[in-house]
Amino acid sequence: MTQKLRDNEVAVATDAPRDAALHFIGRIRTPFTRRDLCPRQGRLDGPDCRLVLDAPWAAGLAGLERYEFADVLYWLHESRRDLVLQSPRSDGAVRGVFSLRSPVRPNPIGLSKVAILRIEGPEVIVRGLDCLDGTPLIDLKPDRCAYTIAAPDKPADRSP
Amino acid sequence: MTQKLRDNEVAVATDAPRDAALHFIGRIRTPFTRRDLCPRQGRLDGPDCRLVLDAPWAAGLAGLERYEFADVLYWLHESRRDLVLQSPRSDGAVRGVFSLRSPVRPNPIGLSKVAILRIEGPEVIVRGLDCLDGTPLIDLKPDRCAYTIAAPDKPADRSP
Repeated sequence: MTQKLRDNEVAVATDAPRDAALHFIGRIRTPFTRRDLCPRQGRLDGPDCRLVLDAPWAAGLAGLERYEFADVLYWLHESRRDLVLQSPRSDGAVRGVFSLRSPVRPNPIGLSKVAILRIEGPEVIVRGLDCLDGTPLIDLKPDRCAYTIAAPDKPADRSP
Repeated sequence: MTQKLRDNEVAVATDAPRDAALHFIGRIRTPFTRRDLCPRQGRLDGPDCRLVLDAPWAAGLAGLERYEFADVLYWLHESRRDLVLQSPRSDGAVRGVFSLRSPVRPNPIGLSKVAILRIEGPEVIVRGLDCLDGTPLIDLKPDRCAYTIAAPDKPADRSP
């Protein structure tokens, strides 16, 4: 993996992260076994991948079958975290990390919208991922576009 | 805040989370000063909110002005994390956490698509958030729909 600085890139000094802690809830199985095999962005017509939930979280999949798409959050465990300005083309032109979807970011959380193909016990078979085989899974939510809130109204939900 | 179990809800025993650590990169200022004032989902025509980046991360905003929308990730710091089955209507009907966009989840990361109104130094003024004033900011990425990858092609990007 290339983790050397390119021309004009800027790394910042930060303390070790300790503001909050994550609990990996499973692993993602993809056909991408090396970083150079990962597409830069997932495609909904890409290969089948599997979200494999650890016990006891598999029970949390109940009801997911009613959705066609989901947002998947995962931990980009091989990324450095200190590059505030980055040069995606290695040509000396830099951009801020928050104007890129680069895996190199202060909190290396990947986010993809996936198509849900089916659920098999503790596994969700999906399309649309771009991450390495074995990537830790952090979260899975119904896609916001299709999501209808199940809870009763509260005052803040009503339009002004 | 209501953190008691409702009928048929299931909490699981987990170890203290320690798989990865987050670094808060700033705070979110919203008009929602109590949980009952937060809408259940942000609206792109909702009130103006501010993403206030800490130094040294403000430099990472360079280039964000070219996007109209962004994905914002934030830490729902008041949420319990152990409810695998939840009853959104408190009526005894439960659903798995991963079929809900509830703030109560093993890794309480909120995700909203926001409209970027303007950038003022270390602050991004946006619409579309639903979170409490003071919520810790984790990440900010250009919306995937409008995002064009800045880097040169690699073999995995080409269609089969």
